[in-house]
This record gives sequence, structure tokens and C-alpha cells, in this order.
Amino acid sequence: MSFVLGPNQYGKAENRVVRIYRDTARHEIRDLNVSTALRGEFTEAHTTGDQANVLPTDTQKNTAFAFAKEHGVTSPEDYALTLGSRFLDVTPAASASRIEVEEYAWDRIEVGGTGHDHAFVKRGGEVRTTVVTQDRSADEPRAWVVSGVKDLVVLKSTGSEFKGYLKDEYTTLKETDDRILATSLVARWRYETTEGVDWNKSFEDVRSLLLETFATTYSRALQESLYAMGSAVLAAHPEVAEIKFSAPNKHHFLVDLAPFGLDNPGEVFVAADRPYGLIEATVQRENGSDAGDAWLTVPGFC
Amino acid sequence: MSFVLGPNQYGKAENRVVRIYRDTARHEIRDLNVSTALRGEFTEAHTTGDQANVLPTDTQKNTAFAFAKEHGVTSPEDYALTLGSRFLDVTPAASASRIEVEEYAWDRIEVGGTGHDHAFVKRGGEVRTTVVTQDRSADEPRAWVVSGVKDLVVLKSTGSEFKGYLKDEYTTLKETDDRILATSLVARWRYETTEGVDWNKSFEDVRSLLLETFATTYSRALQESLYAMGSAVLAAHPEVAEIKFSAPNKHHFLVDLAPFGLDNPGEVFVAADRPYGLIEATVQRENGSDAGDAWLTVPGFC
Amino acid sequence: MSFVLGPNQYGKAENRVVRIYRDTARHEIRDLNVSTALRGEFTEAHTTGDQANVLPTDTQKNTAFAFAKEHGVTSPEDYALTLGSRFLDVTPAASASRIEVEEYAWDRIEVGGTGHDHAFVKRGGEVRTTVVTQDRSADEPRAWVVSGVKDLVVLKSTGSEFKGYLKDEYTTLKETDDRILATSLVARWRYETTEGVDWNKSFEDVRSLLLETFATTYSRALQESLYAMGSAVLAAHPEVAEIKFSAPNKHHFLVDLAPFGLDNPGEVFVAADRPYGLIEATVQRENGSDAGDAWLTVPGFC
Amino acid sequence: MSFVLGPNQYGKAENRVVRIYRDTARHEIRDLNVSTALRGEFTEAHTTGDQANVLPTDTQKNTAFAFAKEHGVTSPEDYALTLGSRFLDVTPAASASRIEVEEYAWDRIEVGGTGHDHAFVKRGGEVRTTVVTQDRSADEPRAWVVSGVKDLVVLKSTGSEFKGYLKDEYTTLKETDDRILATSLVARWRYETTEGVDWNKSFEDVRSLLLETFATTYSRALQESLYAMGSAVLAAHPEVAEIKFSAPNKHHFLVDLAPFGLDNPGEVFVAADRPYGLIEATVQRENGSDAGDAWLTVPGFC
Repeated sequence: MSFVLGPNQYGKAENRVVRIYRDTARHEIRDLNVSTALRGEFTEAHTTGDQANVLPTDTQKNTAFAFAKEHGVTSPEDYALTLGSRFLDVTPAASASRIEVEEYAWDRIEVGGTGHDHAFVKRGGEVRTTVVTQDRSADEPRAWVVSGVKDLVVLKSTGSEFKGYLKDEYTTLKETDDRILATSLVARWRYETTEGVDWNKSFEDVRSLLLETFATTYSRALQESLYAMGSAVLAAHPEVAEIKFSAPNKHHFLVDLAPFGLDNPGEVFVAADRPYGLIEATVQRENGSDAGDAWLTVPGFC
Repeated sequence: MSFVLGPNQYGKAENRVVRIYRDTARHEIRDLNVSTALRGEFTEAHTTGDQANVLPTDTQKNTAFAFAKEHGVTSPEDYALTLGSRFLDVTPAASASRIEVEEYAWDRIEVGGTGHDHAFVKRGGEVRTTVVTQDRSADEPRAWVVSGVKDLVVLKSTGSEFKGYLKDEYTTLKETDDRILATSLVARWRYETTEGVDWNKSFEDVRSLLLETFATTYSRALQESLYAMGSAVLAAHPEVAEIKFSAPNKHHFLVDLAPFGLDNPGEVFVAADRPYGLIEATVQRENGSDAGDAWLTVPGFC
Repeated sequence: MSFVLGPNQYGKAENRVVRIYRDTARHEIRDLNVSTALRGEFTEAHTTGDQANVLPTDTQKNTAFAFAKEHGVTSPEDYALTLGSRFLDVTPAASASRIEVEEYAWDRIEVGGTGHDHAFVKRGGEVRTTVVTQDRSADEPRAWVVSGVKDLVVLKSTGSEFKGYLKDEYTTLKETDDRILATSLVARWRYETTEGVDWNKSFEDVRSLLLETFATTYSRALQESLYAMGSAVLAAHPEVAEIKFSAPNKHHFLVDLAPFGLDNPGEVFVAADRPYGLIEATVQRENGSDAGDAWLTVPGFC
Repeated sequence: MSFVLGPNQYGKAENRVVRIYRDTARHEIRDLNVSTALRGEFTEAHTTGDQANVLPTDTQKNTAFAFAKEHGVTSPEDYALTLGSRFLDVTPAASASRIEVEEYAWDRIEVGGTGHDHAFVKRGGEVRTTVVTQDRSADEPRAWVVSGVKDLVVLKSTGSEFKGYLKDEYTTLKETDDRILATSLVARWRYETTEGVDWNKSFEDVRSLLLETFATTYSRALQESLYAMGSAVLAAHPEVAEIKFSAPNKHHFLVDLAPFGLDNPGEVFVAADRPYGLIEATVQRENGSDAGDAWLTVPGFC
């Protein structure tokens, strides 16, 4: 009976790196959660305990902080590309690096109608994400950037129906012409390239387009909304190869007020926690580019 | 040996009431988390199990939803006052009601530069709160409104020092002239009255003033910032009797980059989770009004 | 217009202190979450920013760790008494200290039928708590110990009814002779004294008695179960002055399977998240001792 | 420019199904969190909004509860196999079903030394998991069972070192011969077959073996512990094809007490939250069976 080490990776997760730019009196802040990982030939570390090939996760942490100073943080994507590249340089046994970054947005506090120089309020809500994978196991080194947004909670108070679905003997759901549609969106999109992209602008534009399309699409199901949102992004953003969604259908059930002699024409709802519908979908270009390892160990569906 | 029932209350917690106003094509949304409680002479329910005096928590829930239709939600405070009053009316054994409401803000999704009629994105971050207590145990019925905000995360990247503090043999902290000051603020303020207040406007103004004062106050300690914030609110808002703060000092530690040959003049920080300083304070009017039961069972310090 | 500092406290929250006893090969582990706070004459710190009277929260943290070595951790209560006393000794401006400790239990991993010497598995579930307050603002110094348990999740699959309650026009709940009763219990009890108590034994016995009484009490409402549990504790534990409960009624709703041609005689339930009933009660000795500041800033109802 | 629907799935997540067996006075409880999903030819639902092929997530929920009565819950695995099979039967467009189940354990409350008939206390801590995938897209229908445990928190207070690792100019970590090793283990193992396995017994045995091996393995790194644990499982359990681990290294840092004149020979530690090492690894049989879609959309690394 013989056993072998299969797929594996290791690194330092959730380094909370905060970078302040203070070259002028008008400070800037980048607030990141950085998770690093290496993959490769680390069999000895597992089977005999020999750590000679292992760059410690503590060193990975140190580098994450040092690079925030040395190379700065102009975007999560650029920062992650630089950091992942470094780890490959100094770890001969590593065949691939994976850097995941979450970014939390801060707004300037308004004082007398203008944003303060060095006081900020956290925006809350959605989180910007990126997962950057760099691999040198093949002849040509390859790299992928998968960026996204999570916890983007959106709701339509009308313009959503659900009917005409398959029924069996366990079906009790009533068809509806008008319901609340709400979701806490996770979206991740893979870029065609790792160079020449204005990451911050691309993120802002994709985000706006997702919101706008959600708002303006009449929805026969959350699936249809997601597909429309994904198609809009691919149509407007040639730099995006494909986009994935994980969208919990945050049910808002119309409350039955009839026992109290009250009508309820779409006015009072209970926001339910669990269970929730969970709709997950990918929109791709026809005959699009190969995804390679871009999605490897991305959490969940996307 | 004889035992007695001491202080007690019961109710339905965390009713997720969502009210859509759709009288015109331009919908409005109020998104609430409502917790109700009754206090009073409920000894039998505890000692013999006789529930004859107990308005079920399920009925409290039904009423919370029905009142969102019948009386609407113009503000968390007005809604809570109406609901709490109702429970006293129909529950003879109750001497007091306590209604706690959290409100989550939604923004209209921008489409072509203007906010959409019926599509919204959750603002995230801070939560608006109110705790309304109505008591009829004394000769004169009394009522209190304690409103507030929680999870309001703010940060100053400079303009904060900490030095000149008491030292003992366990003190290792270095004094500093310049540090990041950050907190996730909980603030609650008691109103002098339950009538004639424009609750929504008062909330918005207090919130803005808290932010502005945090931004513009040079801080020798989080305590000083809080006191300045509270004083500013009391000075500008005669309708506010007192204000309490619970403010975790969300430490951002300067990272020592010297081992890597790098300076770090206030540029790279690690955002720590635990432990955290926890600063809690009240700012009151001198010889101010009696708080009565306003703060009874308000969670934590405030 | 003049403002004053009202009630206030400050300290270091959530110090995760882990103490290993390794005097023999058979190690012991105490795993604590320690929150410290001081109250007193700290006006200057708030109004002028002068920190001369303020023992830094960082020093409080250092002391919490150092005392785990110097004085050890035989029980959360003894540890907290020692620590709180120290802070009063070295902080002349402080009139009171408040030490809150949570303890997480670990079991030895079973190897060949016996517990391993130095390998442990976290028990999970409930957390042991204590809040120790020491005050010297009056002529005589006073001290209180409030210990407890939280997140103790219990359930009865029968032996629980709910009927005979007050009804109004919003009542739709059906009476029931048989339901699931479940709660995630928070219980805190105040000790009559701070000396001469075997804290560990008292905790274990109270905990067992709470569980046993919950199990064996036929329940006409959660209120009745709680009162029985509290009375049992007071009857058996003269060292306990009073006990408070905060008990969410974790609803398990019987699922209507009739549409599928199925009976459901108490067999299939949906465990609901929100809303939940929230029952809070105190059981006290008749003409019992004065609670003083024992419950000051204990989170929530208890 | 043409876009297509890529990988997708949809279902009802987190159905909290509680099944009581009450055929005798000695009740049994199975407490589940059930998430269902279907994959297949659902293009129309996304592109035109036509839901004719879509079995609603509400129906999936109903079925999950009804099957707890009709087919019972003898194990999460058997329940999931039955449920997933049903969804394929009634949804012609579906090519695959995926059922994920978490189970929470309850212990009988001890009364007078024996477990009570119908009163339970939740065990807390670890959660038992299974992900069952059934696919009929190929000529032969295939099925996979991946079971596991998560949130299993274990700790060794000695018998762990970390040294001899790769160093670069960002390395500051000191080598150590003795440290605390702790992790909150997620383990998932794929079974060779979906039939003829005593799921409950297999789970209990694997769980015990994981714990035992963790305890008795001298650890030169968390990687080595995991590999030993996985190998032990494969050696003892021919029904297991492979096992994956996701193991956060929950750092317990030795506190420097030297500034206070105290030694600290492995006695006082601070339990850190973030960042944490994250070690993920697979142990497989050499030339083992094909995993097919067994791991598709399993959250994270495993």
C-alpha cells in the first residue's frame, strides 16, 4: 500500500496590510487583506518533515508588508502580481504562487462640504477582490488575474417575476408577477491578460455596469439577471474573458396581512435568512481563451 | 428558603421588517430589524406556567409587520413609539414596553447619472439604531427615546498622539507623537422628549457632526476625541440630553521594516483584531434631566 | 451651556491568554479571553487630553499575560480577582476595576482509551464566563463575582406546551400541547462572596443542575423552565445570591407535510434563525443581598 | 460578439432540517443543514428567462423536508444520495445533482448518571459534512461521496518544532524546537464507492484516527502532521480513496515576559487571530481511482 502527496498549497492568510500615502498633506489609504500561497514540489516537507524547500509563511507575511512600502499599492492587482512574482523568485521548489487580496474602501469625511485630508470613514458593504495566479510549471510561464466584488447587496422592489417553472408533487410555490428580487452578489471575472490593464478603472466600470444592468433588466429569474449582467460586462470590456457569479437569492416574502383585515400589495415583506436560493453561473465568450489554473482554489463556485 | 422573580422581560427579537412605499413609480424602502419586549407583572408565567397574562411573542411579531402597513415607517423612532404603545394597550399585565430598531440604509442604483426608481444597493457599514422605552408603572406614564449609530468605522492617518501616561513596571508601550487612530463607533444619545423631534433630520445632523468633530479634533487619546464629539452634539442639539460612546480602539501598529533596511515613517501598518482598547464614556449636560429607565437593558455600555 | 463627563470606563478587551501547565509530562491548559476595564476619576483624559492618570490599555494587556505566569490561572474567578486588584493598586485615579473572562474548555484527545498527555481537542459549544468588579469608592472596598455560562444550547423534543395565552386581533398562533423547546442559554449568577468559594466546582455543579432541571421540568413556557432552573440553583447553592437568564427561544417549527400526503406527528421541523422569542428573567432570594455594582455594564440583560 | 452560458448550478442552500425519531420514549435527533443544487441544460432560464426546465428551489426545499419523513435520516450520506437521486428523476434537464449536508451532534443531558430520553445538549465544536454528487451526463451514471469534518480544533502543547526552513532577506522568524501546534481542521475524504459503506461508523472511525494520529505524531511542521493523518486514514480505511485537508495554523505566540523579569518556558502564549498560516494538502493512493466531479464546487481547497 503506497500513498502520495496530491495537490497542495501553503501560505499566510489574511495579512491586514494598511498603506498610507502621506507625500502631501492630502493622505491616501489602501486597506488590504492579503493571503499568499505557494504550490510546487514540497513533498519532503510533508513526508519527512524536512523544511529546506519551504519559505516560511512568516517570511511571506514580512514580504507582504515590506512590499507595501517598497513597491506600494497602486491597485490590488499590481501589488499581487509583484508579490507573487517575488515568491517564485526566492522559492526554487515553488511552481506556482497564488495571491488573494481583498480591498476595503474608505471615503474622506466631509467637513464643510469637502473631503478631509486625513480623516476617513469606511464605506462598508462590498469588498473588492482579486486572485492572481502565476505558474511556471509549463515551458512558458503563465499568469492569470481574476478580479471581482463580493457582498454587493442589491434589491429591486418591482420588475421581477417568477413563473412558468417545472412542477412536481412537492411543488407548492405560487407563481408571481411581481416580487422583490435581492441578492448579495459575488462576482469574479477573469482578465485576458495581466498587463496593460488599468485595474482600478476596469474595476469601477465593471462594478457600475453590473449595478446598472441589474437595475434596468426586467427579471424572469435571478438567472436571467445574472446572464444579462455578465453579457453586458463582456460586451463592454474586451479585457474580460469570462465572469462568474454566486448569487444567494435573499428571499423577501410578502407577509400575509389578510388575517388582520389588511391588503398587502407589495408593501410589507419579511427578509428571510435561511434557506436561500443559490444561483451560480458563468458567462463566457464563445470559443474564448483557456482559463488554465485561473480558478484553482478560488473559494466556492467563484 | 424562598425565591422570587426579579427583573424580567420577554418579546420577539430581530423581526426583519421591510417596508416598500410604492404609491408612485419612485419607490422608497425602509429596512428594519425590530426587537420588542414587555416588562411587568408576569410572575405566574414563570412560577406556575400560567400564560393568561402573556401576549405571545408571535403576536408581537405579527403586530410589528401589520403596523408597518397600518402606521407605516416614517422613522424608526415614530414606528417604535407607536408599536410600544400598542403593546401596553393590549397587555394589562405589562408595565413597560421596550422596542429596539436597527435600520439599514439603501441607496438608489445610479443609471445614467440619476438614481433608479426601484433598484437599490445596500449602503453597508453603519447601522442606525433606536431603543424606545415606555413605562406606566409610576403615576405619570413616561417614555424615552435613545437613538444612535453603530459600526461607524472611522480613521485618522495623522493628528493623533499618545503620551504622558501613567507607567508601572509592566509598561512597555513607547510614547508616540503620530499614530493612526481608528475606531468602530457605537454612539447612543438620549432625547429630552419623545415628541416634536424630526427624528430623521436629527439623526443625520448628529451623525455628520460626530464625523466632522472626529476629523477636526487633534487627539491626545481616543477619550479626548469622544468627549469633543459628545460636547459638539450637546452644544448643537438642545433636543439631546446626553450621549454615550463605546469605542474599540482598532489598533493599527506601525510595522518594523528596519530588518529589511526600510524606513517606515507612518506608511505601512498592520490592522490588528484582538486585543483592542475599549473606551466607553458619557457626555452629559450639567444638572441634566433624569435618565429614568432609558438605558435599561441597552446592550453593553451603550 | 456646560457639559460634564458621565459614567465611563476603559481598558483592553479580548486578550487571548493561553496558559500551559507543564510541570509534569501531563500538561494542563487554560484558554482565556480576558477583558479589563478601569473606572474612576479620568476627567482630564477626556477634557484636556492629559493622560497622566491613565494606566495604558497596553500595560493592562501586559499585566494580564504576566499574571498568568506569576499568579497562574487556577480559575477564571481567582485570576480576575488578582488582576483587578493589581490595577487598583497601581492606578490611584481608579475607583473600580472590572475584569471579564471567558474560558474555552479543552478535552484530552483519546489515544488507546486514555487521554493524551499534551494533545487536546477543543470542546466547543458553551463558554464559561466571569465578571469580577472591585470598587473602592465607598468607605469599605467592595467586590462582586458574577459567573456564568453562555452558548449552552439545549433542546427538548417533547414535554413542552404553549397555550392559554393572552390573545388579541393580531394573534394567529395555534396553541400546542407538544412542541420542541430549544434555547441557546446565557446564564449569569452572582456570588454572595468573593472568598472561600471553590469556583471550578461551583461552576460545574451549577452547570449540571441547570441542564438537569431543564431536562426534567415539564415546560408550559420557556419562562417556567428558566424559573425552575434558577430556583434549583438557589436551593442547592447557598453561595449564589441570584441568577439571571437570557434565553432566545430557538423556534423549531413543525413542517406542514399535508400537501404531500404525509402526517407529521412531531417528527420533521425547520430550525428557524430569526425572529426568535427572547426570554430574560432573574431569580432571586427573597430579601436577598444588595447587588451593588455587580451587574454594571454586564452585556445585555445579563 | 457572442456569449455563452458556462458552468452553472442552482438550488436551495441551508435548509435547516431537524428530524426527531420518537417511535419509543427514547427519542433520537438528527440536526442537518442541507444545501441542494442542480446542474445541466438550463440555458433558456438564463438567456430568455424561460423557467420551464427549472425545478424551483422552493420545491427542492419542500422535498428536503418531506424526504426526512418519507425516507428518514439514517446518515447524512444516505439521505443525500436519496435526495439527489430524486431531483434527477423529476428534472429532465438536469445532468447532475449535488447535495451538501452538515450535521450538528447532540448529546443526551445527563440526569442522575444516565442520558435523558428527550432532552439534549448540543455538542458544539466540530461539524460532520458530506457532499454527494450524482451525474448522468456520461453513458454510465456516476456518483461520488465526499465526507468530512470541519471546525475540529486541536492543539499540542509540545512535540512540535519548526526549523531548517528556507531563508531569504525577509526572514526574521526564529527556529524553534518546541512550540504549540494548533489548527481548526477541515478534512474531507472521497469514498471509493457509494454503496455498502456504514457511513456513521466510517465517519466515527476516521475522525478518531485523525485525532489520534495528530496527538501521537511528532511534528516538524503542520504539513508533516497532516500527511501522517491522511496516510493513517488511507491505511486503515480501504473504502477511502483520498483525503484533503485545509488547516489554518492557529498561531500561539510565546509571550516575551523578560521585560518583567520573568522566564517563560512554554507557559504563557497569546492566541493570535490573523494572519494565520494556511496549510492545504491531499493524500492519495498511488495510482488511485479517478476523482471525476467529486470535488466540483467543494468550497475552498477542500
